[in-house]
Amino acid sequence: MTAKIRLYVDQPLGQGQSVPVTREQAHYLFGVMRLGAGAPVLLFDGQSGEWLAEVEEAGKRGGSLRVGRQVRPMQMPPDLWLIFAPIKKARTDFIVEKATEMGAARIVPVQTEFTNSGRIQRDRLQAHAVEAAEQCGGTFVPEVTDMQRLDRLLDNWNATRRIMFCDEALAGETAGLPAAPGPWAILIGPEGGFSKAERDRLRGMEHAYPVPLGPRILRADTAAVAALTLWQMSLGDWRR
Amino acid sequence: MTAKIRLYVDQPLGQGQSVPVTREQAHYLFGVMRLGAGAPVLLFDGQSGEWLAEVEEAGKRGGSLRVGRQVRPMQMPPDLWLIFAPIKKARTDFIVEKATEMGAARIVPVQTEFTNSGRIQRDRLQAHAVEAAEQCGGTFVPEVTDMQRLDRLLDNWNATRRIMFCDEALAGETAGLPAAPGPWAILIGPEGGFSKAERDRLRGMEHAYPVPLGPRILRADTAAVAALTLWQMSLGDWRR
Repeated sequence: MTAKIRLYVDQPLGQGQSVPVTREQAHYLFGVMRLGAGAPVLLFDGQSGEWLAEVEEAGKRGGSLRVGRQVRPMQMPPDLWLIFAPIKKARTDFIVEKATEMGAARIVPVQTEFTNSGRIQRDRLQAHAVEAAEQCGGTFVPEVTDMQRLDRLLDNWNATRRIMFCDEALAGETAGLPAAPGPWAILIGPEGGFSKAERDRLRGMEHAYPVPLGPRILRADTAAVAALTLWQMSLGDWRR
Repeated sequence: MTAKIRLYVDQPLGQGQSVPVTREQAHYLFGVMRLGAGAPVLLFDGQSGEWLAEVEEAGKRGGSLRVGRQVRPMQMPPDLWLIFAPIKKARTDFIVEKATEMGAARIVPVQTEFTNSGRIQRDRLQAHAVEAAEQCGGTFVPEVTDMQRLDRLLDNWNATRRIMFCDEALAGETAGLPAAPGPWAILIGPEGGFSKAERDRLRGMEHAYPVPLGPRILRADTAAVAALTLWQMSLGDWRR
């Protein structure tokens, strides 16, 4: 019997360890999924791959899992950030989920001149990233950072990290991604587009590459998945 | 002043025509957007490009638009179908929206052996495709077909249409898409995966190509956008 349930735990795992189960996890594992003592569960901690564990103690409000052998090695995603301007709540959740599945290493919400939403709930978004990692079979959970202003982010930009910026104003243009490995960030334009100042600034940055995403105008959430696909195929862990 | 509002109308357009406005459109144009007589609106009919029109008569429950000159030619998407197994309602809506933005010509919901959802609301999905086309600046609206069984669809398959099938069982494998133009279909595996019989059958079809989508397992909606990106970049209208 294969363990199908995968759980992220926020502590470094090792063989023989006993891992306490949170109240929410207990509800899911023992209430919803009805696992009893001895049932297999896969665990990952975001840094040491995947481990086969089994239920040690199943309670209504908690319990514990006993960690067995490591079953998969750690697989780090490429050093790729996804920077985007949060939009409606459901679409923002979606972008975090998709960025995790698509293998972004870090998710950076930014406020641009034309962004309406001034706030995010970082913890909620981080929980979405955890859930997506559990679901997609990855061993890594990308960090969702606090919201920051795009201009300040660019003020402090480390020039060794290249930027692929996707701008609806580019629809139909041709441009390419240089075959440059190393750290990258994908920057998705906000729904209202970048301001002229932002666009000029990005176009003036040495290692920023404008990349069009086809002839139609994509919503920010579509653009995020498409841009991640394009980057992963060209430079990331989808390369053949 | 640029006309920002784009509307799909279900009749062939031509210069000088007067186009009646439906009750819903009247609510949106004259109620929500507060357009008055003379205000510009962009129209497309899915077959003759985009036209600049202006409000002729604005009423609470109706009105009309007068069609002026054609402002953009018709842009057909490539002859690409997206075939997928509907899942939860929100994700199915999302797949239809994304397929439209990404330039699929036809959207085909199928029932596979492991599909749970036996029903779709075709009209509602078609309305989503219209809305997405209005929003993404495209001049084409893909048809959403009725749900059909995958085995019957394959029984009647026209062998000149190649199939790119995306299967979670392929995660991590390497494979390629042949540089073959012409009609294609992308087939996205259902959340529970294809059955062994379905997979064997697809692998045995002459013009079906298994294509992996990276090392993580993607949800069906992510897979749809990623597969469309991959195909459009390789064979479609995103080529440089």
